[in-house]
Amino acid sequence: MSITITAFERSPDGGMGLARDTRVRWALEEAGLPYAVRPVSFSAMKAPAHLAIHPFGQIPTYEEGELVLFESGAIIFHIAAHHPGLLPEDSNARARAVMWMFAALNTVEPPILELATAKFQEGGKSWSRERLPLVAERIRQRLGQLSARLGDAEWLDGQFSAGDLTMVSVLLRSRPSGILDEFPRLAAYVARGEARPAYQRAFADQQAFNTGRSPAA
Amino acid sequence: MSITITAFERSPDGGMGLARDTRVRWALEEAGLPYAVRPVSFSAMKAPAHLAIHPFGQIPTYEEGELVLFESGAIIFHIAAHHPGLLPEDSNARARAVMWMFAALNTVEPPILELATAKFQEGGKSWSRERLPLVAERIRQRLGQLSARLGDAEWLDGQFSAGDLTMVSVLLRSRPSGILDEFPRLAAYVARGEARPAYQRAFADQQAFNTGRSPAA
Repeated sequence: MSITITAFERSPDGGMGLARDTRVRWALEEAGLPYAVRPVSFSAMKAPAHLAIHPFGQIPTYEEGELVLFESGAIIFHIAAHHPGLLPEDSNARARAVMWMFAALNTVEPPILELATAKFQEGGKSWSRERLPLVAERIRQRLGQLSARLGDAEWLDGQFSAGDLTMVSVLLRSRPSGILDEFPRLAAYVARGEARPAYQRAFADQQAFNTGRSPAA
Repeated sequence: MSITITAFERSPDGGMGLARDTRVRWALEEAGLPYAVRPVSFSAMKAPAHLAIHPFGQIPTYEEGELVLFESGAIIFHIAAHHPGLLPEDSNARARAVMWMFAALNTVEPPILELATAKFQEGGKSWSRERLPLVAERIRQRLGQLSARLGDAEWLDGQFSAGDLTMVSVLLRSRPSGILDEFPRLAAYVARGEARPAYQRAFADQQAFNTGRSPAA
């Protein structure tokens, strides 16, 4: 059954790989699944046809036959649940991999997104300069705790899993602010994720998509 | 295998049911599973013994034999995946129920928590009064979109699922601000969740736990 995802027609990051389609592309590459990408413009994203697929008017979405999904976490989980390589067989290890997906999206990503909101939606406000360091501090608190848990391990819980894929994708969004690099263990963890061939393919494809250039050979 | 969860020794909401142990209690009640609750004080929450279980120093956690989980979404999913009643059998319907869990936690809850942070952590700042309406507007945007999707349906996708349990639990946190009641369909949806016997038991138990009074007979 053919798979189609949606992505920004042109990502606001210009192809840095920080839009949420990249994590879905990565999961599809890890699973070895071919897929098509349908671009959605900012105006189309808020129009009825797209809202019928994604009630919150965002990307990515995932279509596979009758199944229509939104929310990158749910899409990654669906791919991981139906193809080998992204979730452990052992029931307890599987529960922990899912736990790291939720931790990435519900505990680590919110302060990172809050900083983006503070910069881009409230950057012109009089309070912005005083407030940004408070938000950055909330990111540092989470990354410090995560770094302590990761320690010197390669991945969060044994083998690479959908939990790591999601966490690395979320952490990547804290790199432009410089905060990721304050945590050398996390920066190295993210680099291990980026070094995976499946990530490399996903990154090159989204970059080509967003810049209009062919992926590097 | 016996189940133990953790909860605030005394919830900051005084037993209104808004702490995240309530949603886990609710899932356990829906699944008909007995469980014990271990209270954790605010100081113990940041101490090594608890951080070994929950790296971000929060509640709830879930212990069942060798399995130790944190993140309410992951705990609800684990319960739902192993007991009937919270996830549909049909593979596509199951993927959509999980999608609504992620949507609740990753798209709907963040602005609701941002308002709490704006009030309680930044409420004393000079900008607070000007900023709160901006954050409230971000909640309204999400609830408006969710209300449009729900329409006149009873639950988000057919039968009641872990997706509804999670969404209702998240929406409950927007009630103290008055914003939930601006969306009558969502307020009625939340009321349907609260009317479930399993929710009633979970709510009474957390209330008794937090007030030191026995649950009402």
